[in-house]
Amino acid sequence: MGKEITSRTQDYSQWYIDLVKKADLAENSDVRGCMVIKPYGYSIWEKMQQGLDKMFKDTGHVNAYFPLFVPKSMFEAEEKNAEGFAKECAIVTHYRLKSDPAHKGKLMVDPDAKLEEELVVRPTSEAIIWSTYKKWIQSYRDLPLLINQWANVVRWEMRTRLFLRTAEFLWQEGHTAHATQAEAIAETEQMLNVYAEFVETFMAVPVIKGRKSEGERFPGAVDTYCIEAMMQDGKALQAGTSHFLGQNFADAFGVNFTNKEGKLEKVWGTSWGVSTRLIGALIMAHSDDDGLVLPPKLAPIHVVIVPIFKNEEELSKVSVEANSIAASLRKLGYAVKFDNRDTLKPGFKFAEYELKGVPVRIAIGPRDLENKTVEVARRDTKEKMVMKIDEVAAAIPKLLDDIQTNIYQKALTFRGQMTTTVDTYDQFKKVLDEKGGFVLAHWDGTAETEAAIKEETKATIRCIPLDAKEENGVCVYSGKPSGRRVVFARAY
Amino acid sequence: MGKEITSRTQDYSQWYIDLVKKADLAENSDVRGCMVIKPYGYSIWEKMQQGLDKMFKDTGHVNAYFPLFVPKSMFEAEEKNAEGFAKECAIVTHYRLKSDPAHKGKLMVDPDAKLEEELVVRPTSEAIIWSTYKKWIQSYRDLPLLINQWANVVRWEMRTRLFLRTAEFLWQEGHTAHATQAEAIAETEQMLNVYAEFVETFMAVPVIKGRKSEGERFPGAVDTYCIEAMMQDGKALQAGTSHFLGQNFADAFGVNFTNKEGKLEKVWGTSWGVSTRLIGALIMAHSDDDGLVLPPKLAPIHVVIVPIFKNEEELSKVSVEANSIAASLRKLGYAVKFDNRDTLKPGFKFAEYELKGVPVRIAIGPRDLENKTVEVARRDTKEKMVMKIDEVAAAIPKLLDDIQTNIYQKALTFRGQMTTTVDTYDQFKKVLDEKGGFVLAHWDGTAETEAAIKEETKATIRCIPLDAKEENGVCVYSGKPSGRRVVFARAY
Repeated sequence: MGKEITSRTQDYSQWYIDLVKKADLAENSDVRGCMVIKPYGYSIWEKMQQGLDKMFKDTGHVNAYFPLFVPKSMFEAEEKNAEGFAKECAIVTHYRLKSDPAHKGKLMVDPDAKLEEELVVRPTSEAIIWSTYKKWIQSYRDLPLLINQWANVVRWEMRTRLFLRTAEFLWQEGHTAHATQAEAIAETEQMLNVYAEFVETFMAVPVIKGRKSEGERFPGAVDTYCIEAMMQDGKALQAGTSHFLGQNFADAFGVNFTNKEGKLEKVWGTSWGVSTRLIGALIMAHSDDDGLVLPPKLAPIHVVIVPIFKNEEELSKVSVEANSIAASLRKLGYAVKFDNRDTLKPGFKFAEYELKGVPVRIAIGPRDLENKTVEVARRDTKEKMVMKIDEVAAAIPKLLDDIQTNIYQKALTFRGQMTTTVDTYDQFKKVLDEKGGFVLAHWDGTAETEAAIKEETKATIRCIPLDAKEENGVCVYSGKPSGRRVVFARAY
Repeated sequence: MGKEITSRTQDYSQWYIDLVKKADLAENSDVRGCMVIKPYGYSIWEKMQQGLDKMFKDTGHVNAYFPLFVPKSMFEAEEKNAEGFAKECAIVTHYRLKSDPAHKGKLMVDPDAKLEEELVVRPTSEAIIWSTYKKWIQSYRDLPLLINQWANVVRWEMRTRLFLRTAEFLWQEGHTAHATQAEAIAETEQMLNVYAEFVETFMAVPVIKGRKSEGERFPGAVDTYCIEAMMQDGKALQAGTSHFLGQNFADAFGVNFTNKEGKLEKVWGTSWGVSTRLIGALIMAHSDDDGLVLPPKLAPIHVVIVPIFKNEEELSKVSVEANSIAASLRKLGYAVKFDNRDTLKPGFKFAEYELKGVPVRIAIGPRDLENKTVEVARRDTKEKMVMKIDEVAAAIPKLLDDIQTNIYQKALTFRGQMTTTVDTYDQFKKVLDEKGGFVLAHWDGTAETEAAIKEETKATIRCIPLDAKEENGVCVYSGKPSGRRVVFARAY
């Protein structure tokens, strides 16, 4: 089938691109920086949405929808937020096209249809949402507001990469408003935990929970929490962020409430988001040179059944058993595909489903029927086993659970191997260059040191882990005292 | 609770706006023409999405995602489509803001960041999707492509109205590609039927299936099928459209395929969509002067339980029964709310849930406990009935089915009463002015007559019904011969 995937050792970056394209997940569109998410890639996103949406609702959130456009004056109200996104915004300036008199059949922007105020295509929705919350919040009785939005956003990135960094991407953004600081911080932490649980449980990717340094904070936030994952090339990937916004947006938009004592107070806020970037993380964490390795909890197809046959009669006999197994599994809630195409050889199909990362493959041929067995292959380890036909349906749920666990354990072990504690700057640089991964090092807490290290090594502080031990040491760069180690890495 | 909804007889249009706002469905944003869909309104949209998405998947479609932006040159490739939307497009011309030197803390569009080619914010996605299909389709083996997208679109409408007509709205758009004309037409008709089934079964709104006259066709389509619904004020509302695109987009984007005989052929296409406009239709078809009337299949809350109590002890006793009923109903898959707030009177709560259109209300007080009964009220007819506590959970499913059926039947009866057959232009005008509704009249089939009638009466041809009987007559306007009656109405 001409898979032609570059191997990871040869060129990890090309391997990723090959895989995204060959597995039919996404492709670049003719619109600069924007991707087309193809049906197979989108079906993974749908699974992610279902999992996350349920977790959001279970924690009391509801969905709503706010406008795509943000008027410039509203956009600039929270200055740090505006400054942070100003350089990468798509701007709508006109609302009409007209026939181009100079080119028959062509259109031109109608200069008479210039907007009085330009509209920013949302790069994030704090501004539009807090300008709305101002109308919704008067009293403590209106709080908390626990709202999430599934939407597209646009950030005019100069260097793009499918799923990881695109001009338009899909995401969810939670925006909550609270009466007290403590409640807002608790919400920020709760949603970080929701993200961590989702990424570890559904995506089978272990994460470090932590806080960003001041330099890496979300523009407009008082504190940014994040989860950081490790990819197979030893680079870090920020998988989700949860921001404690303090009263910054309440200040910018004048969002106040009357408390129980009848006094006016400013509202506290949070925002938190994950995006289609998670699909990139999923691919880079688990897949191999033969294609995707998908954790069963996010796999669009759990089990594929491939019949082995030489003629129609054999196919017909095999189909009876295949359909019976498929029916039993579907009754248990699994997505099963029976690929009975007669124009393709089994070997071709095997390769195709390996490429697509289907967790379990069942092959059945005439000899299997005689022996009352099937061949079961798991995608993660490539192991094959022979099972009795009448036991296979009952065995699959446990097998899928095993695969889910194994994928997670493998990633966890890898992360352990790729996490290094260093105490000198020479070690720091050597590990980054020769091994990669997470580097745990003391840092003096200053933006200057952080910037110098980034400049010299391209490594950034991924986070200050929430579970970091108090430990006296000296900064690897400045030699100044430090109270705990932070996580450095080169990152996506 | 200060509902203050204008009555329908007083001002139907204001009644609608009051209802949308008071029932917390949506509101106008500070962005011209764009609405905020509030959580309660969005939860109805989520129910609609679930119902439709399942029907799309059951008919073999898959979801994908295509870019928000369409480069101008791509947009104008299919000339009729481009011409149809050119006058109402939001245009992105720049990709960066910068600090405004004249106004401290303010931003301005960076003139150095002008795009080489302007981007149109999609008003519909045929152009971007067919430019992509060109890459995906080479052989008959690549066909059919059966893809749907859930997305936001922007049409710069001058006069907007919550849900019914807004600059940005949410919708789904199906875009399919086929090897033969017959298959594409069958798909167009299939999706019309899917829409009709959804609107009748879920929304409880009867529809007429038909085809648009040439003048009302989707720009770029060869044929537009539609479903037309009737609102309580006798105006028509187009609830969904399904377009047979012929080979127009294949022509514009050069989308060809090699057929089984190895010859190159042009691809046939369809597109079809419904939007958040359906929420407007839902409201206007069923609701009354006290608030929403929601069909159970789309109601975010099926049953609300309101406790009647004077003190905590009574609440506590009532709660035991209430929670037990709620648990039984939830087990059956129903969304149940037990409103045990102790700061509000039952009467206030009754009015609130009437406003929100919750189909069934159960009230339980101490006297009910003595009698082992509850009071059950249905929202559609306002009937109240007393039921035995231990029978109520079992009775609710049938009651909800009855409500769904009753709402549909009521709308069907109303439509019947509001459908008038006329044979003269005087009758035609009289019915439109004095009664409204659907007017079945002969039409000579010309665009001139259609335009003249629209100009003189504001009535448009809603559709040429698929089930129209062959019937010789003369056009009410021109007196020229006609072979069948068409449906005229004033419309949203």
